[in-house]
Amino acid sequence: MSSIFEGFLSTPEVLELFSERQIVDAMLRFEASLARAQASVGLIPEAAAQSIIGTCKVELFDVTKIVRESARAGSVAIPLVKSLTETVGLFNKDAAKFVHFGTTSQDVLDTAMALVTRDALDMIETDVRKTIACLLALAERHAGDAVLARTFMQPASVTSFGLKCVNWTAPLVRSLQRLQVAGANALSVQLGGAVGTLAQMKKGNKKLGPQVMALMAADLGLRAAPFSWHTQRDEWVALGCEMALLTGSLGKMAKDISLMVQFEAGELAEPLEPGRGGASVMPHKRNPVSCMVALAASVRVPQRVAALLAAMPQEHERALGNLQAELAEWPGLLMSVHGSARAMSQALAGLQVDTQRMQANIDAVRGELPADVADEWFNPALAQHAATLARSQLAVLTQALAGLNTPGKPARTLAPS
Amino acid sequence: MSSIFEGFLSTPEVLELFSERQIVDAMLRFEASLARAQASVGLIPEAAAQSIIGTCKVELFDVTKIVRESARAGSVAIPLVKSLTETVGLFNKDAAKFVHFGTTSQDVLDTAMALVTRDALDMIETDVRKTIACLLALAERHAGDAVLARTFMQPASVTSFGLKCVNWTAPLVRSLQRLQVAGANALSVQLGGAVGTLAQMKKGNKKLGPQVMALMAADLGLRAAPFSWHTQRDEWVALGCEMALLTGSLGKMAKDISLMVQFEAGELAEPLEPGRGGASVMPHKRNPVSCMVALAASVRVPQRVAALLAAMPQEHERALGNLQAELAEWPGLLMSVHGSARAMSQALAGLQVDTQRMQANIDAVRGELPADVADEWFNPALAQHAATLARSQLAVLTQALAGLNTPGKPARTLAPS
Amino acid sequence: MSSIFEGFLSTPEVLELFSERQIVDAMLRFEASLARAQASVGLIPEAAAQSIIGTCKVELFDVTKIVRESARAGSVAIPLVKSLTETVGLFNKDAAKFVHFGTTSQDVLDTAMALVTRDALDMIETDVRKTIACLLALAERHAGDAVLARTFMQPASVTSFGLKCVNWTAPLVRSLQRLQVAGANALSVQLGGAVGTLAQMKKGNKKLGPQVMALMAADLGLRAAPFSWHTQRDEWVALGCEMALLTGSLGKMAKDISLMVQFEAGELAEPLEPGRGGASVMPHKRNPVSCMVALAASVRVPQRVAALLAAMPQEHERALGNLQAELAEWPGLLMSVHGSARAMSQALAGLQVDTQRMQANIDAVRGELPADVADEWFNPALAQHAATLARSQLAVLTQALAGLNTPGKPARTLAPS
Amino acid sequence: MSSIFEGFLSTPEVLELFSERQIVDAMLRFEASLARAQASVGLIPEAAAQSIIGTCKVELFDVTKIVRESARAGSVAIPLVKSLTETVGLFNKDAAKFVHFGTTSQDVLDTAMALVTRDALDMIETDVRKTIACLLALAERHAGDAVLARTFMQPASVTSFGLKCVNWTAPLVRSLQRLQVAGANALSVQLGGAVGTLAQMKKGNKKLGPQVMALMAADLGLRAAPFSWHTQRDEWVALGCEMALLTGSLGKMAKDISLMVQFEAGELAEPLEPGRGGASVMPHKRNPVSCMVALAASVRVPQRVAALLAAMPQEHERALGNLQAELAEWPGLLMSVHGSARAMSQALAGLQVDTQRMQANIDAVRGELPADVADEWFNPALAQHAATLARSQLAVLTQALAGLNTPGKPARTLAPS
Repeated sequence: MSSIFEGFLSTPEVLELFSERQIVDAMLRFEASLARAQASVGLIPEAAAQSIIGTCKVELFDVTKIVRESARAGSVAIPLVKSLTETVGLFNKDAAKFVHFGTTSQDVLDTAMALVTRDALDMIETDVRKTIACLLALAERHAGDAVLARTFMQPASVTSFGLKCVNWTAPLVRSLQRLQVAGANALSVQLGGAVGTLAQMKKGNKKLGPQVMALMAADLGLRAAPFSWHTQRDEWVALGCEMALLTGSLGKMAKDISLMVQFEAGELAEPLEPGRGGASVMPHKRNPVSCMVALAASVRVPQRVAALLAAMPQEHERALGNLQAELAEWPGLLMSVHGSARAMSQALAGLQVDTQRMQANIDAVRGELPADVADEWFNPALAQHAATLARSQLAVLTQALAGLNTPGKPARTLAPS
Repeated sequence: MSSIFEGFLSTPEVLELFSERQIVDAMLRFEASLARAQASVGLIPEAAAQSIIGTCKVELFDVTKIVRESARAGSVAIPLVKSLTETVGLFNKDAAKFVHFGTTSQDVLDTAMALVTRDALDMIETDVRKTIACLLALAERHAGDAVLARTFMQPASVTSFGLKCVNWTAPLVRSLQRLQVAGANALSVQLGGAVGTLAQMKKGNKKLGPQVMALMAADLGLRAAPFSWHTQRDEWVALGCEMALLTGSLGKMAKDISLMVQFEAGELAEPLEPGRGGASVMPHKRNPVSCMVALAASVRVPQRVAALLAAMPQEHERALGNLQAELAEWPGLLMSVHGSARAMSQALAGLQVDTQRMQANIDAVRGELPADVADEWFNPALAQHAATLARSQLAVLTQALAGLNTPGKPARTLAPS
Repeated sequence: MSSIFEGFLSTPEVLELFSERQIVDAMLRFEASLARAQASVGLIPEAAAQSIIGTCKVELFDVTKIVRESARAGSVAIPLVKSLTETVGLFNKDAAKFVHFGTTSQDVLDTAMALVTRDALDMIETDVRKTIACLLALAERHAGDAVLARTFMQPASVTSFGLKCVNWTAPLVRSLQRLQVAGANALSVQLGGAVGTLAQMKKGNKKLGPQVMALMAADLGLRAAPFSWHTQRDEWVALGCEMALLTGSLGKMAKDISLMVQFEAGELAEPLEPGRGGASVMPHKRNPVSCMVALAASVRVPQRVAALLAAMPQEHERALGNLQAELAEWPGLLMSVHGSARAMSQALAGLQVDTQRMQANIDAVRGELPADVADEWFNPALAQHAATLARSQLAVLTQALAGLNTPGKPARTLAPS
Repeated sequence: MSSIFEGFLSTPEVLELFSERQIVDAMLRFEASLARAQASVGLIPEAAAQSIIGTCKVELFDVTKIVRESARAGSVAIPLVKSLTETVGLFNKDAAKFVHFGTTSQDVLDTAMALVTRDALDMIETDVRKTIACLLALAERHAGDAVLARTFMQPASVTSFGLKCVNWTAPLVRSLQRLQVAGANALSVQLGGAVGTLAQMKKGNKKLGPQVMALMAADLGLRAAPFSWHTQRDEWVALGCEMALLTGSLGKMAKDISLMVQFEAGELAEPLEPGRGGASVMPHKRNPVSCMVALAASVRVPQRVAALLAAMPQEHERALGNLQAELAEWPGLLMSVHGSARAMSQALAGLQVDTQRMQANIDAVRGELPADVADEWFNPALAQHAATLARSQLAVLTQALAGLNTPGKPARTLAPS
């Protein structure tokens, strides 16, 4: 039931990741992990846990019906838990009452979102790394190739195309750095129970909530959050902000490329592939569709993040409206970001660079200026100056990349732990 | 592939309306209507038109494949037109070259959006009218029933619940009024051809574009726009703004109700129905889920509209990025708005009003104040003052409603025509 | 204490209009008008009214002190009313108790905003009309001058510069049309008293509020709102939306011009004036600073409007936070809009058009294409097709302009009245 | 010429910090530091540097005139540099040509913004630390005091007020942690020269730019950015995002408090001070004005940040429109954030806590439920469970606070260096 327009603004992979089926699957992984952990600390019987775990398989559920019933309930977790409880009860009547024990709708939803988001981040990082690799190669190859430097969209002086590539790369590397921290902070198990106290998870006076959380975190590959984040959304939204910063940096590169591929500039071209970037009627058109995708994302994503930020004042122990708004905005955010990351990795993979045209554009400017101004500001020698800068900064970037964690590996967190 | 969270924040009807299948169907209605009009003015052969019209049936197309192929093309119109052309060619080889004649991707997409949006507006209007009808009845019934007037969320004085209902109604009536104008302006056929000049639609020196447009407008029930709106999006976005104003007014009512249904206030309750507003674990919970939906919409919709407004600077004769961003934001906007309109129509249909509790809350305030202050500001007689106001304003609203067009009927436009 | 950066993104006139002094002046005009009207219906003594009216002169007040004291009070109206009451009391002890009688902070603030906004709208309309006049002249002069039509920022076909001008004009004319309606609806006296019922304004059982409102409306040149709009902000925010639509249309024109003035395109240039658009160090720079201002506004204004829309769910009879947010966002909105309108009126007043370069750019495209494609899509004769369209649409626009009210004159309203 | 409404939504200190005078002062500190550094590496004569440094005193400049002239120039740096050059020339004709040597408008503006922003961050941190201190004391005092836990704005179960305080505190501590990193990354000298290459700063073949940058960084107490950030705004906007996250967390606390201070709940009250939170006419009103300020900020700030994010795609080596939009949005962002931080520090400093009323509200809920439900979900013993959690989390927070840098001290950065 999604918008047909995400098809070319996002990617099949991330669209699938946030499909109804995959999110229900992630919710079931939460419920299975919960049962496993609770059995292991003695909160629920081992046999009940086995029944629950065995039933937490997405193919056993009517996802469409669950979504349909979510409308009346006001939550997609409620019909899922109901359906899971009924199904468990079919096979093991005694186990049914241990389904979803001591937890709450928001626990399962937030954790499910953390699970699919982790995978989305991996996808995004993969594409960004590809883009960076292309850019570093271009930067090296064109370190000293002169190109107009333009300010206020007018020729200002001369720089090198290699330095332009370095300048596109640096914020992407910084995004990877910041994302690893933000991801490590935000990708936490949510486990607060009805009102954030896990009051139901105890045996006599012994509070078992923290142990259950720790086991689930290890099991699911998420962080054991030291605090419930039911209505404290800062770490989650901080991750959203990082998504927007990345989209902005990709959008900056797309903006520059879209200007350089203009027929009148002719300095770059997006890769030529059959069926890509054509028009429905004009055979001569070659549309920079990768830039289009990244630019569209750079318009949409800031608004997604504004919605997340605006939704932060969440009432008391569970919010009315703001929580649901945040949940619903999140998938679209990740879809746009991966669309942008993928589009730019495709554009860069086959980017055509016309250094002769770059030089010709400089010459055209020189031709209209007094010789002294031309020699001061549009001297091709300035490209050599830029080259030195490009090379020294390349080294900095290479070193920064080496210091990054391998994708999927845990990073240090900033939060109290 | 949509977000699972729209299931309870929107409605099945509007989700279906913006489904891939329905949008492809609307695109095919454009292509059929184009062929019909072009044959009628002699631009294409009648036989070709018959072939095209006969093929423009959504059940003949592989919608999923078209969406999948949109990714590479950068547009969903390109694979559809390709598929349509091939299918027409199977039956009538000569007709194939007259498919989509003289037009462009954006023509079909914009017109398709106008078609589905018209239906969405009807749905929205229907729910808003239901809400208004409930509110007017409540206003009459409770015209003189005293309730605390609260400013800065603190008791300020006494008003009547009837006047509160009137105040919730007035902006809804104004929304219907403004929506009829905005809809009449915005729901236009888009027909500009490759670059907005309809240059291909001529016979010798005779320019047939305007005639084709007029015939299509009559056929499709849309306005014949006097100007191409390829990159002049003000009337379309103005309609989007009206959507947000309506959502804001519904959100204001939801905010008030959410405060009045608090246990501590207890003045109102959302209707009680099985399976509605429960919690996944707490049997005693009765969550105001209609308010939740309307409040979530009031957080999300302003950001959708900000995206539409931010996307208005569209380059030259077709934009790179901003057009696609606008297209993709639109369905989510309408989904949230209908979700909100429906939710409030459900809340109002069975709203429980506790006038005794309203009076008790006034008495509680009086009990904490010096007698003179209590008598000046919390005098139950103030409700009678409010009642007079409520009744006179009810008459104004009733008259305004009578002046509205019946849903689906054309309204006057403001734009040059 | 404002941001130094509005100096070049707005105009001196509108900055002055929203200065502390002018807003206090408008608040005093409200208080004077209130006293005049209340005396005239016998609610307060004529002598008291004379004292109050005589004291409502901004030069008698310490504006800086009032603003400073607003911090503690949480409202700028409270210290002003206090100061006014004290000053009136100095001259006429008996009159002091009739200051601000039966009204509330929000009444004076909202009405003051309506007063200064009316003047801002006049300024904006004046600049938009200047721009339209320039555009119509350019459209006529260049009706048949060929220029590249560009889609996705790539050459697509040929149109005429005159038609481009028409396309820039049409949304501005529509903005004037819609603004007259939106302004007429929104520029209302606010007069609700403590909680929107005007309960204090009665004599015995006679309710005099509506009469006072009518007299004030006539006196201040504002509309007599049929409903209190304390927390029903739709008409006010609808006017804000119109501001954003205008900014978007100006931004679209600025975007196009910024692309056409690129050195590599060279089709247009902003007017050359001493001290305008230079750089701090590069003598050869000629920056399109008018486009810069309009583009900056088109990024900022959508967010202002999103804030207004997001603030619409205002609690009960006066909001906590949302009202104050809306008030504070408003001046910046108008500042940016007038900045944009002025900038574009300056750019258009002396816009330099290079039709030879336009033709040369077409020729360059033709040179790279097969002859048949060049002849079909880049045929200079296409400009004549566009010319016909441009001329017929010019007539439509001229007629629409003639149908507009003269600035400052009242327009029909849409709202119930 | 600012908005009168910031007076009660911001603070006098931060309004002064972003005043025209203080920003010009910061710009002059840049120019003086530049001259000092350039003389020290031999790029300009020592005597010229002395003249420049001696002239860089804000009291020598006509700030109002500079701002007025910025309109035509399209930048406030251009008239300042012109005025500085003229003034230096009056005293030392030879020195004039060394003013602003090898640098550009954006260098001075960005660095000036970094300087005033650093001071604003210190102010904000000071108020947040005060709030945290109050909250920790409250958390300890009320660790076991029972209060209703509310979900969807309805009573759900019982928690402790101490745990609520802990939950308000944790995101503030995390904000301090993240802010130290974000600030350390973002508060950099900007020094790129005309197009980001510092090409003018060389002596023969020796590139002295990096040395000048390092000296200036040490002199001004800012970071020496390893890359020019003329059009790579991610680190700067990341700091803006942190501002919004903080505002969101403060807004969440304000939202909760605003609900708890409702007359009908009566669990908390903002501190009572003369002249604070009164109404212009109702003597009995006690408005929660601190919450009002924080809630208003939480509506406005997300939109500021959306504008910053939307402005990130900055063209080439200096942007047209997006740069200026970002610059102009920044001061308002910091003003709102400090307003919110100050307001909450004032609210917390004297917050009145009514634990009896908290208990009474629980009892009222119990009274309406079956005994078994009441005993399971509204058992006062649940507060003891929450108390244990509160105390263990207090320890985590205290330790995290101890690990923070002292305000004003440099923190580790994440960026390549």
